Amino acid sequence: MAHLLSTSCSLRIPSCRKTFFQSPNAFTVKTSKSLVRRVVLPGESSQRSHTVYATSTPIKQEASAQKHSALHQSSKQKRVMVIGGDGYCGWATALHLSNIGYEVAVVDNLIRRLFDNQLGLDSLTPITSIHNRIRCWKSLTGKTIELYIGDICDFEFLSETFKSFEPEAVVHFGEQRSAPYSMIDRSRAVFTQHNNVIGTLNVLFAIKEYREQCHLVKLGTMGEYGTPNIDIEEGYLTINHNGRTDTLPYPKQASSFYHLSKVHDSNNIAFTCKAWGIRATDLNQGVVYGVTTEETAMHEALCNRLDYDGVFGTALNRFCVQAAVGHPLTVYGKGGQTRGYLDIRDTVQCVEIAIANPAQPGEFRVFNQFTEQFSVNELAALVTKAGEKLGLDVKTLTVPNPRVEAEEHYYNAKHTKLIELGLKPHLLSDSLLDSLLNFAIMYKDRVDSKQIMPGVSWRKIGVHPKTVMA
Amino acid sequence: MAHLLSTSCSLRIPSCRKTFFQSPNAFTVKTSKSLVRRVVLPGESSQRSHTVYATSTPIKQEASAQKHSALHQSSKQKRVMVIGGDGYCGWATALHLSNIGYEVAVVDNLIRRLFDNQLGLDSLTPITSIHNRIRCWKSLTGKTIELYIGDICDFEFLSETFKSFEPEAVVHFGEQRSAPYSMIDRSRAVFTQHNNVIGTLNVLFAIKEYREQCHLVKLGTMGEYGTPNIDIEEGYLTINHNGRTDTLPYPKQASSFYHLSKVHDSNNIAFTCKAWGIRATDLNQGVVYGVTTEETAMHEALCNRLDYDGVFGTALNRFCVQAAVGHPLTVYGKGGQTRGYLDIRDTVQCVEIAIANPAQPGEFRVFNQFTEQFSVNELAALVTKAGEKLGLDVKTLTVPNPRVEAEEHYYNAKHTKLIELGLKPHLLSDSLLDSLLNFAIMYKDRVDSKQIMPGVSWRKIGVHPKTVMA
Repeated sequence: MAHLLSTSCSLRIPSCRKTFFQSPNAFTVKTSKSLVRRVVLPGESSQRSHTVYATSTPIKQEASAQKHSALHQSSKQKRVMVIGGDGYCGWATALHLSNIGYEVAVVDNLIRRLFDNQLGLDSLTPITSIHNRIRCWKSLTGKTIELYIGDICDFEFLSETFKSFEPEAVVHFGEQRSAPYSMIDRSRAVFTQHNNVIGTLNVLFAIKEYREQCHLVKLGTMGEYGTPNIDIEEGYLTINHNGRTDTLPYPKQASSFYHLSKVHDSNNIAFTCKAWGIRATDLNQGVVYGVTTEETAMHEALCNRLDYDGVFGTALNRFCVQAAVGHPLTVYGKGGQTRGYLDIRDTVQCVEIAIANPAQPGEFRVFNQFTEQFSVNELAALVTKAGEKLGLDVKTLTVPNPRVEAEEHYYNAKHTKLIELGLKPHLLSDSLLDSLLNFAIMYKDRVDSKQIMPGVSWRKIGVHPKTVMA
Repeated sequence: MAHLLSTSCSLRIPSCRKTFFQSPNAFTVKTSKSLVRRVVLPGESSQRSHTVYATSTPIKQEASAQKHSALHQSSKQKRVMVIGGDGYCGWATALHLSNIGYEVAVVDNLIRRLFDNQLGLDSLTPITSIHNRIRCWKSLTGKTIELYIGDICDFEFLSETFKSFEPEAVVHFGEQRSAPYSMIDRSRAVFTQHNNVIGTLNVLFAIKEYREQCHLVKLGTMGEYGTPNIDIEEGYLTINHNGRTDTLPYPKQASSFYHLSKVHDSNNIAFTCKAWGIRATDLNQGVVYGVTTEETAMHEALCNRLDYDGVFGTALNRFCVQAAVGHPLTVYGKGGQTRGYLDIRDTVQCVEIAIANPAQPGEFRVFNQFTEQFSVNELAALVTKAGEKLGLDVKTLTVPNPRVEAEEHYYNAKHTKLIELGLKPHLLSDSLLDSLLNFAIMYKDRVDSKQIMPGVSWRKIGVHPKTVMA
């Protein structure tokens, strides 16, 4: 795949020196053909320092009271590697973990930004480079986030990140995460499964080889389960059959090459827990909405991305953007498709909880990570009502469903394990919807209406390379 | 992967000219950088002919009554593509299908032979090149088997085979099929999953794009199910849970990267049946034993391979070779591991039945393909008893189990669907064991005792490249 970069470099802004930034253009990265360029600074351990310097000028500091979560006073100073830490959930998580006291490293090949370039898409919100983001965070809080830029499918690169950073937990968001992207054409279907499956295999091998006590927190998806006609449990199901009983992995019925890649991952991870004693938590996440967390709100350079397009946008976020610009809410098919949803602030909270309460060696633990379930029609009604309160005239448009999925079905998915460990959900109240809508209104001049409609059909996927938005 | 060849060529020995062979060395293949070299011979259709010439001298013909199965008189002249048609099950199947009247094409990258070269292994039985095999078959029976040499992970190659051969059924054996091989090192684990998953994805895309009515007959494995404490059904399980009922994919618990790759395949295929209307039969095959089929017995150049080594050898075949050379039967651990087994003559019969009774469009049909189940200890006892009848002194040696698996467990797997469609099993009677043992005795001078013991540990797999048999 031409877009699968193999070049890699790493960045650590040393905590012993002040760093600043002015603009992305003022930044210079020294890359090296050797996998990780080690530059040991005076007073730093030679074991764990490797730096790419940044040319820097001051940044105006925002008020930022550094807050620590009560959830894990005990686990501060642990080193957490966030793979995919430049993405939507990954960036918010990296900042949150850094804020509450973890040493954080972001590992990312930045390919999500390349997808936007290639498909002609853009985040609703303006986002700056990962380098600027990290410098801004350092400047505001004094906290260092290390940065390793490279591809986890390149095991030599991944090995160096493990040997260098020595993580005690790895949060793995580093996958191609869009179902429509995986259904654009054969090449992207293959890329999605290769990238996600092989990347995760490499993470498992790296843990086994270099950090066998390291806790893997892997992002799965509620979409792995599909829409069975029975209650969805958290990962396992106790089955009575012909007079005998066993507790088995919950049967999966994924409905895109992306969702399938997550099922493959879950099966691979479960095996390595059993065979090698890997400790893993699989977070089967619902659809995430919202953009602002406590940390991303500290400075505009920390702003998270928000996708509203037909490839990377998800239902509620897309509806809010549609309402803001006066575009009808696009309901696919009958709109009875029901899924679990959660606020991005709960994503970061759930990861925090998982890390603070690690799985045991050999345990493959599965949490369903969402807080409420809604049908698409229910979401459309909620956005319509919230829009009206803001004076917006919100219409709904039924469009042919580009996916292959049941449009009316039973859905009752359990999600109690994270609650039992202390999750305090941010529910989708009117006020929350208002704030998401206001956010969309704030940036509505950046909306490209051509991106909104679905351009990818599950049934029409072909073997020839396709550029969706051209 | 260095051993993943991308060069490809294709061979069709035109039915209009006599072909012969003397030795593998007398054969010359003209390959081309272009994917499929098309050479149109006089009187042949330009659409489907593309030939690589062979230098040839006469072969002595064996007696060979051409027999046709009663099972599918109706389906003669159909074109069946056998992917992996140079392998253990694939070769026997290709010959059988050709014998009963199908037009057959073998698609293979011959990588199974390369594995032997790289690991220092060899078949118990001497096997000749695929080119010689096919020429011998033509010479004996007058039947043409087309040959496409290339890698199905190379979609351009696979597309050309589909456009050229226009299969009505595809039998897909073309996967890395050894659990120990997949557990040698990281590189081979990744190769196994990439090769098997992406190869199968490409086959699915090729069917969708070029032959949407083509029936996919995919070889899965009984190992996908693991050893649950409840009865194993054929692919699906009806589950009652909290007062509701659904029939869902049977939960899988695979125990090697190889077995996991088959689970991934099953999930991918099931999705494409639903989304695209692919018609597919997943044959969850048990452990195959035996070497001779009606067709491979016709001439020594048609002889099938027989693996007895610690990487590719399977329990019963290995035991017979061990008994023949006076090596103790190596029982892994407690020996209570129970699996389904079948004679290779039933493998070819099952594939014949599946092709003759195709799945419906959109149907993902799963058959458990084995005839009897045995524990390892039971097999050892059977081989010991049969060996004694032949005057062999057979000992059993318990060796530490290199795998991660239950050594004492419940096992009751259903296997009625193929029987209902007409399968007449060859059961593992004493006489059958005798003949397999005699076969092993015939070739015992070819046995390399160093290959027998297990050299691959599920728990010790590491990230560094390993050569097992050096």
